[in-house]
Amino acid sequence: MKAKLKVIKIGGQVIDQAEELQKVLADFAQIDGPKILVHGGGKLASDLSLKLGIEAQFHQGRRITSASEIDIISMVYSGLINTKIVAGLQALQCNAIGLNGADGNVILAEKRPITDIDFGFVGDIISVNAEFLKQILDLGLIPVFCAISHDQKGQVLNTNADTIAAEIAMALSAEYDTEIWYCFEKAGVLEDAEKPDTLIENLNLESYRHLVTRGKIHSGMLPKTENCFRALNHGVKQVKIGSPQMLGNPAIPHSTLNL
Amino acid sequence: MKAKLKVIKIGGQVIDQAEELQKVLADFAQIDGPKILVHGGGKLASDLSLKLGIEAQFHQGRRITSASEIDIISMVYSGLINTKIVAGLQALQCNAIGLNGADGNVILAEKRPITDIDFGFVGDIISVNAEFLKQILDLGLIPVFCAISHDQKGQVLNTNADTIAAEIAMALSAEYDTEIWYCFEKAGVLEDAEKPDTLIENLNLESYRHLVTRGKIHSGMLPKTENCFRALNHGVKQVKIGSPQMLGNPAIPHSTLNL
Repeated sequence: MKAKLKVIKIGGQVIDQAEELQKVLADFAQIDGPKILVHGGGKLASDLSLKLGIEAQFHQGRRITSASEIDIISMVYSGLINTKIVAGLQALQCNAIGLNGADGNVILAEKRPITDIDFGFVGDIISVNAEFLKQILDLGLIPVFCAISHDQKGQVLNTNADTIAAEIAMALSAEYDTEIWYCFEKAGVLEDAEKPDTLIENLNLESYRHLVTRGKIHSGMLPKTENCFRALNHGVKQVKIGSPQMLGNPAIPHSTLNL
Repeated sequence: MKAKLKVIKIGGQVIDQAEELQKVLADFAQIDGPKILVHGGGKLASDLSLKLGIEAQFHQGRRITSASEIDIISMVYSGLINTKIVAGLQALQCNAIGLNGADGNVILAEKRPITDIDFGFVGDIISVNAEFLKQILDLGLIPVFCAISHDQKGQVLNTNADTIAAEIAMALSAEYDTEIWYCFEKAGVLEDAEKPDTLIENLNLESYRHLVTRGKIHSGMLPKTENCFRALNHGVKQVKIGSPQMLGNPAIPHSTLNL
C-alpha cells in the first residue's frame, strides 16, 4: 500500500494577513503524515510593484509578467513570503524547507510561447522532479513551494500556484496516494458564488460536467475545477476545495471532488 | 579517509555584475567533489531600501537592521540573488538548491543581545545542522546559502556571510576535510591594502599574529582573518583568500592560511 501524501495550497487573503496566516500554519503543522505546502502570492507583489512605480502591463486585457515584475515576484514570493512561512513552521517544530522550481531542478517549465500575446516571464510546466521530492520527503522534510518554476536556462518563471499544486500531486501519484486541498476565500464550489449556502459538497466528473453545461461553474472557478479534474484524471485520488479552516477541522463543510 | 568539501564564499562586486557573476558560476560549477556556495548581498539591498525610501539606521556609528530592512534582506538575498544563482547553476547542469538558515533548521541563531547598542534583526549563530547538510550533500545536491539565519521562533536574522561560511565549514569538519575559499575584490591578504604586489601568499597563526601586532592587518581584513583562524582552530583544514578568478585557476596568486 502506498503512503498518503497531502498537497495543500493556500493563497489569497490568508497570505496577506499575518494573524490568519499564523493560524493556518498552526493547523498545517498538526496534519499527520507526508505533506507539501504550496502558496500563492497574495497582493504583496502588486503592492511592491506599485511602490517602485512599476506599472502592470496588459496586452488585450491579459496581464504580462515583465522583466521587472519577475524580479519582484522572485523577491516577494520566494524571498519574503516563502521565508516567513518556513520560519513560521520551524517555530512550530515543523521541519519545513522552502523551494522554488529551480531548487533541485524540481519544476521545469518553458516560457509560454508567443502567439497573439506575449505573456512575458510566465512558465508552463514541463515536468516535476518526483525523485528529488521523494528524497526530500524521505528525510522527513516538509517542502514549502512558492509559485515559481524555471527553464533550466537560467530564467525563473511565474507559474500559477494551483497548477503547481496539481502538477506536484500528479507527479507523486506513482509513489503516494495523493490528495490536494485547495484553500481559498470561499467555502468550496458554490452553485451561486454569492451564496455560501449553495455549497456543493460532492462533485464527480459527471455531476461537474452537468454543472458546467448549466453555466453554474464559470469565471475564476472554472480553471480551478478544470485543474482538479485534470489531476484526478492523472492519478490524484481526491481533491478538496474549501476554506483554510478545513485544515484544522475536517468537519467544516467543503467540496470534495472525485472522478 | 574523509571526503573533501569546499565551502566557497562570494560577495561584493561579483554579486552586482551579471557578467562577472556568470563567469564565477561557470567556474564554481566545474569544481569537483562536494561543495557549498555562500553568497553575500552586494549593494542591491541598499539600492532597494533607497528606492523604497527606507533610511539606513545607525546607532553610535554602527548599522542597525530594522524590521523594514530584514524584509528587504529576505527579498533581495533569499528571493532575488539566491534564486538567480540557483537558476544560473541549474543552467550549467550543477544541481543547486537554495537555502537560508530557516530551511531544514540549518542555521540556528539568536538575535544579538542588546547592550549599549540594539543591532536589530541581526543573528549570532548558535549551531549549524550538519546532519541535514550531510543528507543534502549525499543526494548530490549543491547547497547555495544566502546570509540569513533564523531563531526558531519565526524570525529570520541578518548574519554575516563570512561567518556563515566559517560556521558551516566548522560544523561539517567532523564528516569532511573542509576547506574555505573566500573570494573578494582583492588578490588576498595584502601587507599594504593599496598595493596588490604586497600579497602574502602563506600565513600561519604565528606569522599572522606577528602581522597583526605590526599593524599590517587591520580594518575590514581583521574580522575576515580572525574568522579564518577561528575556523582553522575548529577543524577546518585550510582557508584560501583571493579573487574569484582562483575558482577557475588555482594558480592565480592568493593567500593560503593554515594553523
